[in-house]
Amino acid sequence: MVDLTQLMENEAFMAFASYTTIVLSKMMFMSIATSFYRLTRKVFANPEDCSYGGKGENAKKYLRTDDKVERVRRAHLNDLENIVPYFGIGLLYSLSDPDLSTAILHFRLFLGARIYHTVAYLLPLPQPNRVLAFLVGYGVTLSMAFRLLKSRLYL
Amino acid sequence: MVDLTQLMENEAFMAFASYTTIVLSKMMFMSIATSFYRLTRKVFANPEDCSYGGKGENAKKYLRTDDKVERVRRAHLNDLENIVPYFGIGLLYSLSDPDLSTAILHFRLFLGARIYHTVAYLLPLPQPNRVLAFLVGYGVTLSMAFRLLKSRLYL
Amino acid sequence: MVDLTQLMENEAFMAFASYTTIVLSKMMFMSIATSFYRLTRKVFANPEDCSYGGKGENAKKYLRTDDKVERVRRAHLNDLENIVPYFGIGLLYSLSDPDLSTAILHFRLFLGARIYHTVAYLLPLPQPNRVLAFLVGYGVTLSMAFRLLKSRLYL
Repeated sequence: MVDLTQLMENEAFMAFASYTTIVLSKMMFMSIATSFYRLTRKVFANPEDCSYGGKGENAKKYLRTDDKVERVRRAHLNDLENIVPYFGIGLLYSLSDPDLSTAILHFRLFLGARIYHTVAYLLPLPQPNRVLAFLVGYGVTLSMAFRLLKSRLYL
Repeated sequence: MVDLTQLMENEAFMAFASYTTIVLSKMMFMSIATSFYRLTRKVFANPEDCSYGGKGENAKKYLRTDDKVERVRRAHLNDLENIVPYFGIGLLYSLSDPDLSTAILHFRLFLGARIYHTVAYLLPLPQPNRVLAFLVGYGVTLSMAFRLLKSRLYL
Repeated sequence: MVDLTQLMENEAFMAFASYTTIVLSKMMFMSIATSFYRLTRKVFANPEDCSYGGKGENAKKYLRTDDKVERVRRAHLNDLENIVPYFGIGLLYSLSDPDLSTAILHFRLFLGARIYHTVAYLLPLPQPNRVLAFLVGYGVTLSMAFRLLKSRLYL
């Protein structure tokens, strides 16, 4: 069996692995938040889930939408839309032998921006808090894409 | 050109590649399932698609929603929300030189849980079938995240 | 620190990195398109965003849905549903020592198909333009999955 210590001794890749595992775990937390609001507010999307709201004839009345649940779902979808390109571009960037401190700055800014975005979306904080958090994360990903294409373009 | 056999001779990475290709193909099947229900039930989201429901003035009446189509779409979105963190964390975990049999156990459990989740969502099976399938997949991803951060944390 | 030039001198991987960075950047553009239509048409999903539509008591009237905004959001979600399996399968495929010109053909076809899909969705073009673009991208991903499993199956 091959020893992969070579890859895992690469500091930029290890930093990417650590920060990205945290940002993906944060995204997974949104599923828990959705379930929490669905159960405490008795708001379900499927008839078979309504028994969690209470038994009996009227259980179907829990088949409805709710502002808070929809808000968490929008925050979750926004995470997906932004963390997927961050992960793809960041993985390739971290393997392209970037400057270590520049790379870590990118990963830290993205993690902070996405955590702040979630807080600003769920409380909610007044705008432009959420827009700015979104733009910081977006800019980090574009910056990594630009650096990657500048140094490694192969079409 | 460089020989990548080193990476592809790593058994944990090869196992991850095989199981993950299957789980991603399963997710792609959800697009086919959505199209199938849209065409057989004549339920479309875009005016330009309505001609698949039949010609003529009344084609616009197919611009509607349908319980079964929405169910498939929710199952698809749930796949995305869970397979994205599994892929990201699992890829990094499989590169971190994990114990082979532990790693394969994680990949197998996740694949089984997501297939069962889809079956439970589409039939549908009564709860808590779907919740349990979700929790198994969720737990597998968290377990890989924990193992990765424990052995390789670099912040 | 380890030298990663080995990986980045692999031509199939470099080609994957370049094409995928472009396709992920294209997906990120969908966020901008959504914001553009939300701001110009004054259509918002959150009460705290309505001040971008204008001040005053009536700002809440901008809390509504709009055909064009929903169209862009569907195109964005379709991107996510298709680019996530492409990225996962394509990354593993590009690391499996594929034939270089075959690999580049796959990446080019996928990039072209997704750009055409977005154009066909947003204008919109009459069907079957969008369906064909979807099927080309879908076929490329399945073809990579098939080649990967054929050469590297390890269960």
